[in-house]
Amino acid sequence: MSTFEPVLIAGNWRAPLDPQGSFRADDPARAETIGPAFPISGQADIEAALCAAVAAADALSSASPERIADFLERYADAIEADADQLVALAHAETALPAEPRLRSVELPRTSNQLRLAAKAVCDNAWTDPVIDTRLGLRAHRAPLNKPVLVFGPNNFPFAFNAIAGSDFASAIAARNPVLAKAHSSHPATSQRLAQRAHEALLAAGLPAASVQMLYHFDNALGLHLAGDTRLGAIGFTGSRTGGLALKAAADKAGVPMYAELSSVNPVFLLPGALAERGDALAQEFFTSCTMGSGQFCTNPGIVIVPRGRHGDAFVAASTKLFAETSSKVLFSHGVQQNLARALEGLLLAGAELLVGGSGDGFRFDATLLSVEGKTFLSHAQALQAEAFGPLSLIIRVEDVTEMAAIAAAFEGNLTGTIYRADNGSDDDGWHAVAAPLRARVGRLIANKMPTGVAVSPAMNHGGPYPSTGHPGFTAVGMPAAIHRFTALHCYDGVADALLPPELRNHNPQRLQRLIDGRWSEADIQA
Amino acid sequence: MSTFEPVLIAGNWRAPLDPQGSFRADDPARAETIGPAFPISGQADIEAALCAAVAAADALSSASPERIADFLERYADAIEADADQLVALAHAETALPAEPRLRSVELPRTSNQLRLAAKAVCDNAWTDPVIDTRLGLRAHRAPLNKPVLVFGPNNFPFAFNAIAGSDFASAIAARNPVLAKAHSSHPATSQRLAQRAHEALLAAGLPAASVQMLYHFDNALGLHLAGDTRLGAIGFTGSRTGGLALKAAADKAGVPMYAELSSVNPVFLLPGALAERGDALAQEFFTSCTMGSGQFCTNPGIVIVPRGRHGDAFVAASTKLFAETSSKVLFSHGVQQNLARALEGLLLAGAELLVGGSGDGFRFDATLLSVEGKTFLSHAQALQAEAFGPLSLIIRVEDVTEMAAIAAAFEGNLTGTIYRADNGSDDDGWHAVAAPLRARVGRLIANKMPTGVAVSPAMNHGGPYPSTGHPGFTAVGMPAAIHRFTALHCYDGVADALLPPELRNHNPQRLQRLIDGRWSEADIQA
Repeated sequence: MSTFEPVLIAGNWRAPLDPQGSFRADDPARAETIGPAFPISGQADIEAALCAAVAAADALSSASPERIADFLERYADAIEADADQLVALAHAETALPAEPRLRSVELPRTSNQLRLAAKAVCDNAWTDPVIDTRLGLRAHRAPLNKPVLVFGPNNFPFAFNAIAGSDFASAIAARNPVLAKAHSSHPATSQRLAQRAHEALLAAGLPAASVQMLYHFDNALGLHLAGDTRLGAIGFTGSRTGGLALKAAADKAGVPMYAELSSVNPVFLLPGALAERGDALAQEFFTSCTMGSGQFCTNPGIVIVPRGRHGDAFVAASTKLFAETSSKVLFSHGVQQNLARALEGLLLAGAELLVGGSGDGFRFDATLLSVEGKTFLSHAQALQAEAFGPLSLIIRVEDVTEMAAIAAAFEGNLTGTIYRADNGSDDDGWHAVAAPLRARVGRLIANKMPTGVAVSPAMNHGGPYPSTGHPGFTAVGMPAAIHRFTALHCYDGVADALLPPELRNHNPQRLQRLIDGRWSEADIQA
Repeated sequence: MSTFEPVLIAGNWRAPLDPQGSFRADDPARAETIGPAFPISGQADIEAALCAAVAAADALSSASPERIADFLERYADAIEADADQLVALAHAETALPAEPRLRSVELPRTSNQLRLAAKAVCDNAWTDPVIDTRLGLRAHRAPLNKPVLVFGPNNFPFAFNAIAGSDFASAIAARNPVLAKAHSSHPATSQRLAQRAHEALLAAGLPAASVQMLYHFDNALGLHLAGDTRLGAIGFTGSRTGGLALKAAADKAGVPMYAELSSVNPVFLLPGALAERGDALAQEFFTSCTMGSGQFCTNPGIVIVPRGRHGDAFVAASTKLFAETSSKVLFSHGVQQNLARALEGLLLAGAELLVGGSGDGFRFDATLLSVEGKTFLSHAQALQAEAFGPLSLIIRVEDVTEMAAIAAAFEGNLTGTIYRADNGSDDDGWHAVAAPLRARVGRLIANKMPTGVAVSPAMNHGGPYPSTGHPGFTAVGMPAAIHRFTALHCYDGVADALLPPELRNHNPQRLQRLIDGRWSEADIQA
């Protein structure tokens, strides 16, 4: 008899068939194990879930937009109604502050994201209809008709959870079944979300296997699953090493994998901005780097600061702020160990420690390093390695020309930030740095730290390799994030009555369509 | 002293630095070698071209749309002005008919495609601007700012040529330098196209290394180049084996590769359609299968025909047409050998020869095979292997239910076709077959053979793996084909004057933009 928590497979919460072991969550703040034992799933459960998802794909693909939206809205409502319990569980499992972070920021973001997906579904906004009446060709984006496997990260127990986050909402919006692999650092939170999702699914009348969840499986089984041609796509947010291993398996099977991997999010402080408001910038930087213990994919991991009085003052002010704060609680001992290793690598490559640098158990100091521009340029690969946690590297540079050279030495990042003076004195500097930086980042930010990722159709939470696996897609923002989980379908000479609704002559929804080269909400005269 | 033809590297036609050997073209119709000796390029030339392309990327990325469009239009004009010579060379190197195919169909298609790309550039139609005025976020598609490597196929010396086809036009439209690897079966045609491209480039004032061409390099060097992280993307049309090997190298380097690999393009003849017009269908099928000696990616490689009187008559009529035609000239002896091998594989897997089946040198019979539905279902993998050339496999089925089962047994294809009766008697059959077929093909066609690929914004010349490497993209049709060679760029809090033109408040071009969730051509009030 299994004494492990049940898994959600084929519409049932049931005991695992072949658990390979079990694990429990940690309360990082108390450095103690908490909660029940969750199963580490074996091949039988993974295969059962995949088969059920494959079997559900046809019915889900042909579900009406209203039904999909109904599910997403019910789920959003249920998350909000269950906020007390969800926040308590997530706080215990992640040590993230219950307020404002979990309760007032991340949970509403999550339900909002599900509702925006519902709206995109109702609007058919993600389908991008293109019609050529002369040639009888009509094209749009359609479901993959295959399951999407989603791997959630440790750092957003709600907003990027494999069973509730943007990848989940996007894949469901495009009417694909989701097989969620929760992150093992917050299993009880994920379980409770999955319960709400499951109830909402039944209430909305969607196929029961449209949403399934496993808490954990080992790397070998994960690689095996990622390389299964029955998958339509994979959404992944996590470490570069793990992500690239999964991507290699998926690539071999022809399964598109949208992986958000790593990013140091360089921040360039132009001389005029530093002169105008150096102290305020130090405070902004410190807050951004230590918020959530620095465990953000858009953490400002590198700051480029000119030499001279204002630069020195910024470094001194930052160092003081980092020194005065208490050590930070991390999600797991593994995160702490990885951070210590990353710090070691940066020191070996020539960085110098300004403040912090120690940690044990689940904690690490807010840590600031410094390096010369020339040293960075000659060891750019090692010095731009991501150190996940409350750690930043300051690069001291001679001038804007050296800043531009450093910008050109970055590999792909999610974001790049340039602070410039309000008085226009940095305008040349902006152009010099933005030119090489622009193509190396997904989002170019002015005068703001990168940690905030607004949920907006105009957001790009993506970037060139290796920050993600493909420079053309975003993980956040509807309807664009939905595009990742769609296939392009064309109909050639197919009668109106046999077309999907958004491609028919009659357009009762007044959907925006590209008809014979012009955008139009009109019906087509048959 | 090299006596080989010059390569186009860094804006110069120059002798190869390190040729690994040479090759000449074949005239397939006469089975004789023709034309001068072209170099097989070595690592030094490849590296020189890649370096020059990388160096050209910045300037090309910031070129004005007008200049890019000017190049594309000049090039289109030059191709038309040089049509006599181009057609003569292509006819000699491919044995494709000068009229109508090369002169009246493929050459105008090629110049038209370049002009449609120019129009998309002028319209900024591929940039998809999305603006959130409340949050200060603005996103659009932008150049990759890295070179695009294009591999051209043997079967379209103009329209898919690496230096003139849709991949070329798409990559240039998105302002990326192109490093073209011509197909070695038509080097003189490719050289002449490259001469016209080079002249147009100089006249338009674009960086000289924006367009470069090599005629040939060996597989090992190709794999090495495909895995170079300095590339922004790869466009490939060719064989599945070669394409998947290149894709594996590209995947490992994080280089998106858009590969058009293989397709058997199943054609389902519903009972009512056969009863209404079986003889006409046999003629359509024969024409489509043997046109261009069957060397089309959208060749109807498999036809699904019900048992019974009308099905038997269709098979008999088709067999007669195939028997009465002369043997077909193929592009190369290699194509002939591959076709013979593919035929052998189909026979081994249980198919029976109805007519044809022989070939030597550059020629092969128009060949028709037949197999039972049950046999196909039990050896679906082997029996759906592509046989590139004038060969089709007829699958005989009991009923529409077995047709649907066969539709569900196909892997990803570019197209799937269903013929149905005009009198409505096949409507249930349509639904039964279309349901499983739809998700397995990029283009679902009614009542028409698949060989025509219209150049239209509503075309999808793409499909699920393994027909291509990604189900979300098309290789034909502007602006969609351009999307493959773009990166998503977001601007966060960036001042209006520092934005790219299509994201600024003022919208003098009346570009269609998604502003705060609504489509609009209006300016934004600052």
